[in-house]
Amino acid sequence: MEQRLRDQFRFLLEIDKLKTVQRQNVLADRSRRENSAEHSWHLGVLVLCLAEYAPSSVDVSKVIRMLLVHDIVEVDAGDTFLHDPRREHAQKQVEAAAAERIFGLLPTDQAAELRALWTEFEIGQSPEARFAHVIDRVQPVLLHSATGGVVWRKHGVTRSQLLKKLSFVETDAPALWPWMREVVDRASQSGALLPD
Amino acid sequence: MEQRLRDQFRFLLEIDKLKTVQRQNVLADRSRRENSAEHSWHLGVLVLCLAEYAPSSVDVSKVIRMLLVHDIVEVDAGDTFLHDPRREHAQKQVEAAAAERIFGLLPTDQAAELRALWTEFEIGQSPEARFAHVIDRVQPVLLHSATGGVVWRKHGVTRSQLLKKLSFVETDAPALWPWMREVVDRASQSGALLPD
Repeated sequence: MEQRLRDQFRFLLEIDKLKTVQRQNVLADRSRRENSAEHSWHLGVLVLCLAEYAPSSVDVSKVIRMLLVHDIVEVDAGDTFLHDPRREHAQKQVEAAAAERIFGLLPTDQAAELRALWTEFEIGQSPEARFAHVIDRVQPVLLHSATGGVVWRKHGVTRSQLLKKLSFVETDAPALWPWMREVVDRASQSGALLPD
Repeated sequence: MEQRLRDQFRFLLEIDKLKTVQRQNVLADRSRRENSAEHSWHLGVLVLCLAEYAPSSVDVSKVIRMLLVHDIVEVDAGDTFLHDPRREHAQKQVEAAAAERIFGLLPTDQAAELRALWTEFEIGQSPEARFAHVIDRVQPVLLHSATGGVVWRKHGVTRSQLLKKLSFVETDAPALWPWMREVVDRASQSGALLPD
């Protein structure tokens, strides 16, 4: 077998581990925690269905490619909860090292290509990265709305803490914002989100 | 909330169930069976990495979209093992009904669009569908190669039974065929695949 194909398969086997990385969120039926691989699949289908709410300049297929690889670093770095303060600090360095190691299993050209996609997502400035971040927020809110915010309750998330993390959706996908506010309001009323 | 968005979210919540549909295959670390949602994610990344082995006419982003939705019918129909004879008969009708119901949750235009993608995959004739089928065969073989063919052993799969299911890869992605034959030969030598 050619070295190039061997390297591609090595990477593709390594990322199988993403199926065992558990997120804090639970499935809609509350049966168990979600893993980062199935989460990434769900985001891909969200893009297929919600692309009309992205600015018209957005390259939708690039958003999908970006979301397919955006969590792969968690194979080494693990998942951090949206409201975990570690998220903003040391975790970034761990994830950067993970990107080097894992994408680096691929042939050089592909390693550069997928690492660039991941970096673009992390920087979060391009139209595609911004919409990818919207989708990455919409999906958990959808699951929270289906599960009565059981994970918000468990972690004692407050209303303003959550709104701070979601507020960019109002700018980047305004058509989705009223729904998101509605979910937050309902969760506040039911006590799933703590008052401030 | 607008009815259109409500229907989109209803569909996107319904397909969360794909995360609980178990396949016969096991993860590379053998820790548990794979589910159809994380399998679909893995296929998407395989396409990103192996697109160079598709004929140049193939629309790669369409292959990814197709693979993201190709297993959604399993929410109603369940997964059938590649070598299960039911696969060819009654199962097809169950899956067609599932496609009607599940994609039918979406607004009419999107229901038609995603159902058409699924149908194209099922028919398996277009260049995109053919490469999607290649990828859908490569991924399990990759996992079988990592796990010593534990699932082939469990189900008593024979060498010729397997080669019959894989042989189209020789035509549709010839660059991947030598590797696939190598995995089959090794599995035959180790006894993971039964002789004929």
